[in-house]
Amino acid sequence: MTLTLDFTNMMAGALPDGAGISLAEWEAAAEPFRRAHAAVHVRTGDLGFLTLPTNVALLAQSEAVAEWAKDRFTDVLLLGIGGSALGPIALRTALCAPQWNALETSQRGGYPRLHVLDNVDPASIAATLGRLNLTHTLVLVVSKSGGTVETMAQYLIVREALAAALGEDVAREHLVFVTDPEKGALRAIARQEGVRTVDIPANVGGRFSVLSPVGILPAALLGIDVRALLAGAAHVTEQAQSDSLKANVPGAFAVMQWLADSRHGRHVQVLMPYADPLRDLALWFVQLWAESLGKIGPDGQSVGPTPLPALGATDQHSQVQLFMEGPRDKTVTFIAVRGRLSDGPIPARHADIAELGYLAGHTLGELIDIEQRATAGALAARGRFNATLGIDTIDAWHLGALMQTFALATAYAGVLYGIDAFDQPGVELGKQFAYALLGRAGSDSARAEWDALPRPDARFQI
Amino acid sequence: MTLTLDFTNMMAGALPDGAGISLAEWEAAAEPFRRAHAAVHVRTGDLGFLTLPTNVALLAQSEAVAEWAKDRFTDVLLLGIGGSALGPIALRTALCAPQWNALETSQRGGYPRLHVLDNVDPASIAATLGRLNLTHTLVLVVSKSGGTVETMAQYLIVREALAAALGEDVAREHLVFVTDPEKGALRAIARQEGVRTVDIPANVGGRFSVLSPVGILPAALLGIDVRALLAGAAHVTEQAQSDSLKANVPGAFAVMQWLADSRHGRHVQVLMPYADPLRDLALWFVQLWAESLGKIGPDGQSVGPTPLPALGATDQHSQVQLFMEGPRDKTVTFIAVRGRLSDGPIPARHADIAELGYLAGHTLGELIDIEQRATAGALAARGRFNATLGIDTIDAWHLGALMQTFALATAYAGVLYGIDAFDQPGVELGKQFAYALLGRAGSDSARAEWDALPRPDARFQI
Repeated sequence: MTLTLDFTNMMAGALPDGAGISLAEWEAAAEPFRRAHAAVHVRTGDLGFLTLPTNVALLAQSEAVAEWAKDRFTDVLLLGIGGSALGPIALRTALCAPQWNALETSQRGGYPRLHVLDNVDPASIAATLGRLNLTHTLVLVVSKSGGTVETMAQYLIVREALAAALGEDVAREHLVFVTDPEKGALRAIARQEGVRTVDIPANVGGRFSVLSPVGILPAALLGIDVRALLAGAAHVTEQAQSDSLKANVPGAFAVMQWLADSRHGRHVQVLMPYADPLRDLALWFVQLWAESLGKIGPDGQSVGPTPLPALGATDQHSQVQLFMEGPRDKTVTFIAVRGRLSDGPIPARHADIAELGYLAGHTLGELIDIEQRATAGALAARGRFNATLGIDTIDAWHLGALMQTFALATAYAGVLYGIDAFDQPGVELGKQFAYALLGRAGSDSARAEWDALPRPDARFQI
Repeated sequence: MTLTLDFTNMMAGALPDGAGISLAEWEAAAEPFRRAHAAVHVRTGDLGFLTLPTNVALLAQSEAVAEWAKDRFTDVLLLGIGGSALGPIALRTALCAPQWNALETSQRGGYPRLHVLDNVDPASIAATLGRLNLTHTLVLVVSKSGGTVETMAQYLIVREALAAALGEDVAREHLVFVTDPEKGALRAIARQEGVRTVDIPANVGGRFSVLSPVGILPAALLGIDVRALLAGAAHVTEQAQSDSLKANVPGAFAVMQWLADSRHGRHVQVLMPYADPLRDLALWFVQLWAESLGKIGPDGQSVGPTPLPALGATDQHSQVQLFMEGPRDKTVTFIAVRGRLSDGPIPARHADIAELGYLAGHTLGELIDIEQRATAGALAARGRFNATLGIDTIDAWHLGALMQTFALATAYAGVLYGIDAFDQPGVELGKQFAYALLGRAGSDSARAEWDALPRPDARFQI
C-alpha cells in the first residue's frame, strides 16, 4: 500500500526550452520547507486534522451512531454545504458502487442510500422530500459553526417535514447533529431537545474535517471501512514527520506547486485523476486548495493558486486542448491507479476496420493507463508542467492517504505563501450583505455598506 | 421568455480604484465585434450549429427514433465522450427530475433511465453492464468522427455483451449510431450491418453539437420538449443577426470576456449558475470555451481564457474566498433564475436563536436569489469583475437559449482572439502517443517521437 509522487515533468531537464523548476530552485526550497514543516507540526495540538487519523474516541462516536442506525434506516439525508458536503460526496463516489442510490437494497449490501442537499435550491429540496419515505430516513445536519445560513434553512424545512410526517417526538429520533462540541445554534438545540450529536473538534475547520465525523459518520453508515480510511491517513501523517523533501510527499507536492506558481507563473493548478471514482475527489480538493490559499498575502497583495478540477481520460476531449496550447500558466497533477481491477480483453470485432482493429486484446485498464502516460508525455513535450500521484488501487486506505496528503500539503503551502490557511475572511462581506438583505438583526452596518455601493446611472444591460 | 445579460459590474464606474472595462474600451470594441460578427455569420452554410435550431429534417430523424423506442426500452445507455456526452448530461440534469435514474418508472412518466459512459474506466463499464437488463436497453453510440478511441473501445465491449445476451440479430436492433452522415468507422459498420443511424451534420463539430441529434435524440428519449429547446436557440440566433453590442447578447458576452482577458488580465472565467439543475451546464460550457479558444494565436503565442465551473450558493463555501481575495485574474458570470418555482415560507422554529429566527417567512427561492445578488455586490465592492445572465425559469426553451448564446459567443470570441475556434490540434500529440503505445498500425513516427522525449537520469520521485 503506497502513495507515490513523480514530479520529474515539473523540472528542468524533462521539459524543452529551459522550462521547468531548476535543480537550484528546488534545493533552495529545502530551507523554506523545513520552516514550513516546523511551523505546521509544532501546532499539532492546535491543528486538529493532524490527529484525526488516530483519534479513537472520536471514531467511536461515529461507529456507535452507525451501529445504532444499521437496519433502522433505508435512507440517509445529509444537510450541509462546503466542507460539510464535499468530503462525504467524494467518499461515496470513490468507495461505494457507481450510481449507489439507484441500486437495490441487496446490491447495496443492505446499506442505506445517501442523499446530500448542499444548496438552497427549492427545486432540489422539494424533489428530495417528495421522494423520501421519512419513516425510514435518518437526517444528518452537519455544520461546524452550527449556524450556517444555508444549512439552518434546510434544517428548518426538513425538521418541519419530519414533524409533520412522524410527530415531534419521533422526528427527534431521526436527527443527528454533527457540530462543534460546545458552540453554536445546533449544539444549543441539541441540548434543549435531546437530539443525538457527534462532535467536530473545535480545532478542526470545515475543509479539513473529512476525517472527523463529518466524513467518517456518513462513510460508516454506508459501510465504508473507516478504520482503513484513517489508517491510510495515519500512514501519511507519520511519513510527514520528516522535514526532508525526499521523504515527505505532501511537502514535495506543496513545494512544487508553490515554486511553479510563484517563480514560473503557473497560477492554475489542475487535479486530474484518471478514474471515475475519483471524480468528486477533485472537487473536494478544489475547496481545500482554493479556500485555504486564495488570500491577501503578507504584503497586502492577492495570492494563491487557482485549482481546476478535471477527469481523465474524459477531459482529453474537453480541457486538454487548453492545457496543451493555451497560456503557459498551469500545472497538471494526474492521479494514476496502477493496479486496476483486472478486466478482460477488449473483444475482437471489425478487425478489418483500422479504428477498431488495433484495440482487440488490450484491456480498458491498459487503455486508460496508456492514455494518462501519453497525455503526461505530450504535455511535457510542449513544456507544460505536470506531475503524477500514483496509488495502487482505489480503496479506503488509499483515499485516506490521498486526502491527508492534500490536507498536509495545504497547511505547508499556507506557510510558504505567508498566509493563514485556516481562515476564510473573504466570504464575510457577501454573507453580511445577504444578512442585510434578509433583514437579520444586527446587520445595519452591512446594509449601509450595501446601500453605498456605486450604482452608476449607465447600466450595461441587454 | 427572455435571456438577459447585465455586465455593469465588469465596467469602470461600478468597481472601485479605476478597475473595470472603460467606456472608451467598450466603444472601441464595437468595430472588432462587427468584423467578428460578419466573419461568423457569413459562414452560416459552413458553421452548421447556426442552422441546427431550424433544421426540421434533422429533428425528424431524432423524433422518429424516439417514437420507435418509446415503451420498448426502460434504459438508454449512451457511449460517448467530450461533446458527445457533456450536452446530453447537461440536458438531463437541467430538465429531468433530480436523481432521475433512481426514480421509479411512474415517477419518470414512463420515460427511460439514461446511463452515460463517458470514460474508459473498467470499473464503471463493468458496474453499468452488471446492472442493466440488456433486453430492455437501447444503446446509443455517439461519435462525430466515428472512430474515437474511447467510444470504439466501449462499443466493442458493449456490443459483445449485447450479442451474448440477445444474440447477434436482436443485438443489432438495440443499437443506434449517432455519427457523420458519410464518413468514419461507425458509418461503415452501420452500412455493412444495417444498424439504425441518425446524422451529425458534417459541418457540426463535437462541442457545437448539442442541438444536433447528439443532444436532441437523448433529450427526446427522455421526454424533454425538444421543439422548445430548438425554439429558444432559434430565438437567440435570430437576435444575434444584429451586429450591435446593444442588441446581441452572445456578442456582448464574448466582447466583455475578451476585453477582460486581453486588456485586464482576467484570464480565468468562472461560470456560476445559482441553481442545482444548471450544475452540469457549467461543465458543458467549460469544454466549449476551453477547447475552442485555448489555442496558438496568430503570432505564435498561446492564448485563450481558462473557464472554471462553479455553483451557487454551494461554492460560496468553497471557491468564493479565492474569487474575493485571490489574484485579480478572474471574471465571474452568474446565471440567475428570476422566476423560481413558488416554494413556501421557511417554517418558524427556534425563533429565540439568532442564527435561525430571521429566516422564518423567507422562501428558499428568495434566499438563493439574495445570496447571488449579495455575492455579486461583494465581488464588485472588492474590484472583482462580474456579470449576470438572467433567465425566467429553467425549462427547455431557456436551456436552448443559453446553449446557443454560449455557442455563438464562442464563435465570435474565436475571431476576436484571431484563432480557429473549430479545431483542436493540441490533442493530436497525446492521441498519437497513445496509438503508439497501443501498437496501432501507422504510429511509427509517433513512437519515434515518444522514444525521443527527454528522460533525465535524475528522476524526481517519492
